[in-house]
Amino acid sequence: MNTVMVSQEARRSIPDGFFEPIEQRFGSRFSRAEAVREHHGQDESPYAPVPPDGVVYATSTEDVAWLARHCNQHGVPLIAFGAGSSLEGHLLAVQGGITVDLSQMNKVVSIHAEDLTATVQAGVTREQLNEHLRHTGLFFPIDPGANASLGGMSATRASGTNAVRYGTMRENVMSLEVVTADGRVIKTANRARKSSAGYDLTHIFVGSEGTLGIITEVTVRLYPRPEATSAAICNFSTLESAVGSVIEIIQMAIPVARVEFMDTTAVKATNAHSNLTLRESPLLLFEFHGSAAAIKEQAEAVQSITHEHGGMDFEWAERPEDRSRLWKARHDAYFAGLHLRPGCRASTTDVCVPISCLARCVTETAAELDQASFPYTIVGHVGDGNFHVLMLLDPNNPAEWEESERINANLVRRAISMDGTCTGEHGVGLHKMEFMVAEHGQDALDLMRSLKQAFDPNNILNPGKIIPARVSGGLGG
Amino acid sequence: MNTVMVSQEARRSIPDGFFEPIEQRFGSRFSRAEAVREHHGQDESPYAPVPPDGVVYATSTEDVAWLARHCNQHGVPLIAFGAGSSLEGHLLAVQGGITVDLSQMNKVVSIHAEDLTATVQAGVTREQLNEHLRHTGLFFPIDPGANASLGGMSATRASGTNAVRYGTMRENVMSLEVVTADGRVIKTANRARKSSAGYDLTHIFVGSEGTLGIITEVTVRLYPRPEATSAAICNFSTLESAVGSVIEIIQMAIPVARVEFMDTTAVKATNAHSNLTLRESPLLLFEFHGSAAAIKEQAEAVQSITHEHGGMDFEWAERPEDRSRLWKARHDAYFAGLHLRPGCRASTTDVCVPISCLARCVTETAAELDQASFPYTIVGHVGDGNFHVLMLLDPNNPAEWEESERINANLVRRAISMDGTCTGEHGVGLHKMEFMVAEHGQDALDLMRSLKQAFDPNNILNPGKIIPARVSGGLGG
Repeated sequence: MNTVMVSQEARRSIPDGFFEPIEQRFGSRFSRAEAVREHHGQDESPYAPVPPDGVVYATSTEDVAWLARHCNQHGVPLIAFGAGSSLEGHLLAVQGGITVDLSQMNKVVSIHAEDLTATVQAGVTREQLNEHLRHTGLFFPIDPGANASLGGMSATRASGTNAVRYGTMRENVMSLEVVTADGRVIKTANRARKSSAGYDLTHIFVGSEGTLGIITEVTVRLYPRPEATSAAICNFSTLESAVGSVIEIIQMAIPVARVEFMDTTAVKATNAHSNLTLRESPLLLFEFHGSAAAIKEQAEAVQSITHEHGGMDFEWAERPEDRSRLWKARHDAYFAGLHLRPGCRASTTDVCVPISCLARCVTETAAELDQASFPYTIVGHVGDGNFHVLMLLDPNNPAEWEESERINANLVRRAISMDGTCTGEHGVGLHKMEFMVAEHGQDALDLMRSLKQAFDPNNILNPGKIIPARVSGGLGG
Repeated sequence: MNTVMVSQEARRSIPDGFFEPIEQRFGSRFSRAEAVREHHGQDESPYAPVPPDGVVYATSTEDVAWLARHCNQHGVPLIAFGAGSSLEGHLLAVQGGITVDLSQMNKVVSIHAEDLTATVQAGVTREQLNEHLRHTGLFFPIDPGANASLGGMSATRASGTNAVRYGTMRENVMSLEVVTADGRVIKTANRARKSSAGYDLTHIFVGSEGTLGIITEVTVRLYPRPEATSAAICNFSTLESAVGSVIEIIQMAIPVARVEFMDTTAVKATNAHSNLTLRESPLLLFEFHGSAAAIKEQAEAVQSITHEHGGMDFEWAERPEDRSRLWKARHDAYFAGLHLRPGCRASTTDVCVPISCLARCVTETAAELDQASFPYTIVGHVGDGNFHVLMLLDPNNPAEWEESERINANLVRRAISMDGTCTGEHGVGLHKMEFMVAEHGQDALDLMRSLKQAFDPNNILNPGKIIPARVSGGLGG
């Protein structure tokens, strides 16, 4: 809805003469036009834009390093912008400053097929990388839905539907080139598959949302394209039986590539939106990767397990067109949900819990949502214990936003009590800051704070994100 | 040989009255006996012991937290000690202080079979954990050879023979309980399989070698025990053809559980030591995990690939006793090597390079070693690009130690020039500090230094390790 207003009282003043050197260096690659600033002051979250004071289109690491030195010297915020597809207000310039748009840093630097690695500039998107890899027999699996940039995906520790098999950006970023707050350029690691040589700088920056350094280059792991792929769907009468199936599938070490849950409303919405005729009950959607024999064996084992758990209508989609149609339907579930309530905007939750608690977490949440004044759907990366509630809100009714925020706070409280997290893959941004004390505890949060202070002493890098100010709050710890 | 002397000039003085509160709190669990101190001032490295001033046997997290507060207040070093199996001088009390022995913190806290997680106290060893898991159908795969503690394995980012399939401690530690330098107790994460909620504290402590905090509890991932396991060996006439096979195996996405390389001398030593009759040429040793059908398919595909690369005598060991004998031989390769030169001690290298560079790195290193005045063997976790040279040295001949150090420095320089690392799995300790500038660059090392300063401002946690003093050195960057 992009209508939720964020406080801008912390907006910093720009010192006299600050813009001139930027104009001189970047010329037409620097803009203070309102439309440009507005575009860069928002993301896919429900927040209304908070524009920066100016936008620079960087084309090199040295551009970013120069900007960092300049901003650091003058205490002006610097915000990295990739594809703009973040979901939690990561990109809003709540303290003003300069946004550096990295989308023109979009070169594939190198592919090492024998080592299964790719090095790309931060602005390269995942679709661009996979297009580049088309003739190599390799692919990059992480798929958060949006065609995000690799820099942004690293910065938010993104994942998506196939993390159950391939992991998240945490497991797949091997090394980063990073510009520090004071404009130095470092490499966080090398291309060795493993190393014990000192502190893990790579993982410090993965998930740091532009607050510790600006990622300018990313080296990721690649995977051989599976010899064969198949999909299957299976309906259940209850969520519990669907989750029980998945637990047993994982216990049996069946390497499913994806396993996605959709609740009845999500299935209905998808049938309507994607012109399908899926049975309208809780559903699991599987994908299998491997040799022809291996995926047959996997699918048969999964069919047998789902059958034992009361699964119905197990259907194996071997034909690429059937498979694509099913997975496109899953990918479109967000838009399908929106169509349930014309004119609405969705607010999306993102908790992740140990899988043993997943059924209980979803069930208790659904019971609460059934009392809400707005419709909702639930989809889940069930193999990881991560699920999203799409709450379909009237953008012109602030009471619905408040109600959705209450429900989300209860959901986060529930997830944390189950030893889970407030965000499995979307990140903290502005929207999850209030839960950081409850999730991590004050002492762990203080360590994060001291890390931020050590890496960015002048607090210029995407300030006002991730770590709340020192006064306790949120769920009350 | 435990004969290489380390400088102790940085040994700190202990303030008056420092020991009394420790004696009062810990009674017989505190010792200043020479034998106890000597035992705790060494590891499996070639360094002569540098004993701490006293040793405390902790039995609880609160014991460790109390000690941290006490040591921090008085500026006295505090060194965590697990099983004492580190290889690079990690445990030497080069600045004196207190060593806290965590081996009595050996409780398995909880097993969550449905979630595939185990939480253990830091002193639990990997064999103890696997024994505990015996009836669950699950196992913990990481196997560095020694029966190390899980706390120590986390602190050194350990791995071993099956990292090619299961990853290292980096991929398998989900969460840690850590005592900070000032005695606070934090949890670094929860049991959700993925999270984007803020900075990755877990990975900051994994591999930090007791210099940023003391790990008191570890939550790791477990895996379903494979339905079936088989092993195979294959000889090659050259290293290049062996490595070429492995590259193709990985490109074909064949999920080998282990693939180990042994050079001709290592095979000879193993034949003699383990009473085997392996063909004495470069050899690959494989292990396959999966369903009966899957491992058959894997082994056949591997056989076909090795055949194309000139592999000879591909032999499949299905019987558990044959399999065990082969893998025991591989595990005993270290001792077999020692028997090549009675009375010797080994110094072990640990570089790791992108697999595309592995054959060249090993070949160039072997050419240099062939000119050395001592014998050597080479074994490698070839799927990861990690290999070890065992240099068999006369402990009474300092010239051999110096020669081995020169060869290792050249090897590290070679690995770094190939975008590799000085240590794949053993850690930095004292022995690899001189290479940190060359590997990371001064700016990245400065970031590590600022992290250390932020987390341990009084420099009490295992001081004098990982990060060299600010003067540049080593390979000269």
